[in-house]
Amino acid sequence: MEILKQRILAEGRNLGRGILKVDSFINHQVDPVLMHACAKELARRFRPLRASRVLTAEISGIAPALLTALELGVPIVYARKSKPITMPASVFLTTAPSHTKGVDVNLMVSPEYLSAGERVLIIDDFLATGHTIMGLVRLAQAAGSTVVGIGAVIEKTFEGGRDALKSLGVPIESLAVIVDMKGGKIVFQK
Amino acid sequence: MEILKQRILAEGRNLGRGILKVDSFINHQVDPVLMHACAKELARRFRPLRASRVLTAEISGIAPALLTALELGVPIVYARKSKPITMPASVFLTTAPSHTKGVDVNLMVSPEYLSAGERVLIIDDFLATGHTIMGLVRLAQAAGSTVVGIGAVIEKTFEGGRDALKSLGVPIESLAVIVDMKGGKIVFQK
Repeated sequence: MEILKQRILAEGRNLGRGILKVDSFINHQVDPVLMHACAKELARRFRPLRASRVLTAEISGIAPALLTALELGVPIVYARKSKPITMPASVFLTTAPSHTKGVDVNLMVSPEYLSAGERVLIIDDFLATGHTIMGLVRLAQAAGSTVVGIGAVIEKTFEGGRDALKSLGVPIESLAVIVDMKGGKIVFQK
Repeated sequence: MEILKQRILAEGRNLGRGILKVDSFINHQVDPVLMHACAKELARRFRPLRASRVLTAEISGIAPALLTALELGVPIVYARKSKPITMPASVFLTTAPSHTKGVDVNLMVSPEYLSAGERVLIIDDFLATGHTIMGLVRLAQAAGSTVVGIGAVIEKTFEGGRDALKSLGVPIESLAVIVDMKGGKIVFQK
C-alpha cells in the first residue's frame, strides 16, 4: 500500500534492533484516515473468507482491527492483557513474549465472545516474530473456532513471523512489508 | 441515543456497586457499527468546537475516540498506561485511580503529540467518577493545550464525574445517561 509506505518513510523511525517507531500515526497518535484506508484494504483482501469475528490483542491492534471489522460488518474481540472485574472467573488464557516489553504477557478472551463455529480473522498492527498472533491463534483454537486469515498493517519479514505462522495454512496479508532495517535503513519488499 | 440505550438494556449487566458490564458491545467485544453510530453522534455534537486532537486513555476509550476522530478528520492520541520502548525518556505523566481496578494507574502522553495551541476533545467510553478524564485534562493542560469538550458513550451520574468536571466550563456530552443502578436496575435520565 503506497500511501502507508510513504508515511513510514516520512515519519517512521528506525530505533535499531529491528524496532520501528510509528507512534505518530499508528501506536500512540493514530491517523484515523490513514488507518481507515488500511482497514478498507485489509477488508477487501479478506472479504471472501467470510469471517464472523475479528480478533486482536490490546492495545495497538485495536485501531486496525476495529476499522477492518467495521468494513466487514462483524464484531471485533480484543484479547485483554489484564483481567477487568467484568470478566468471568474462567477465561481462555495464553501467554506470549512481548517484543517491545521483554516479558511474557497474558492474553485473555472470555468464552462469552469466542466460541466453537466462529470464523476468526486475526488483525494486528505488526507482524514481527509472530508471537502475539500465535497467542491469538491458540486462544481461537481453545475456543474451538477456526482461524481463517491473518492480517497486519506492517510486517517485518526478518523477524520470522510469517514462517512461524505458515503451517496454519491460512492467508497472511500485510500492507507494508519491510525486509531490512539494518544500518538505520527501512527497506520495503519489491 | 435510543439504539444505545436499547442495547444497554438488552445486553448490559448490572454487577452491583455501580459496575455496568457492557463487554459484549463496548469493552471486550465491540460492535463496530453501533460504535460508529455513537461516534457520528459525538462528532455532530462537538464539530462546532473545531477540535484539533481527540485525546483518550487506553484501552477501552480507543474505539469511541478513534471513530469520533475519523468523523472529525483529526488525529487521536491515546494516553499510555505503561511506557513502551518507543516513547521518549521525558513524557507528560499523571496518575488516576482506576474505578474497576482499585489502584492508581499511570497515564502518559509524549510531548511529541500533544503541544501548546492544540484544541483537545476528550472522549472516553465511560464518564463515572471522572478521575480518568480529569487525568487527561491534566495531561492536556501540562502540554499547554486547551480542552474544548468532553464526551462519553455512557455516563453514570450517581458517581459524580460531571460535577467534578463542571468547573472546566466546557461542554460535556454523553450518549446514554444512567441515573440509578440500585437494586439491579438500570434507569436512564428522562
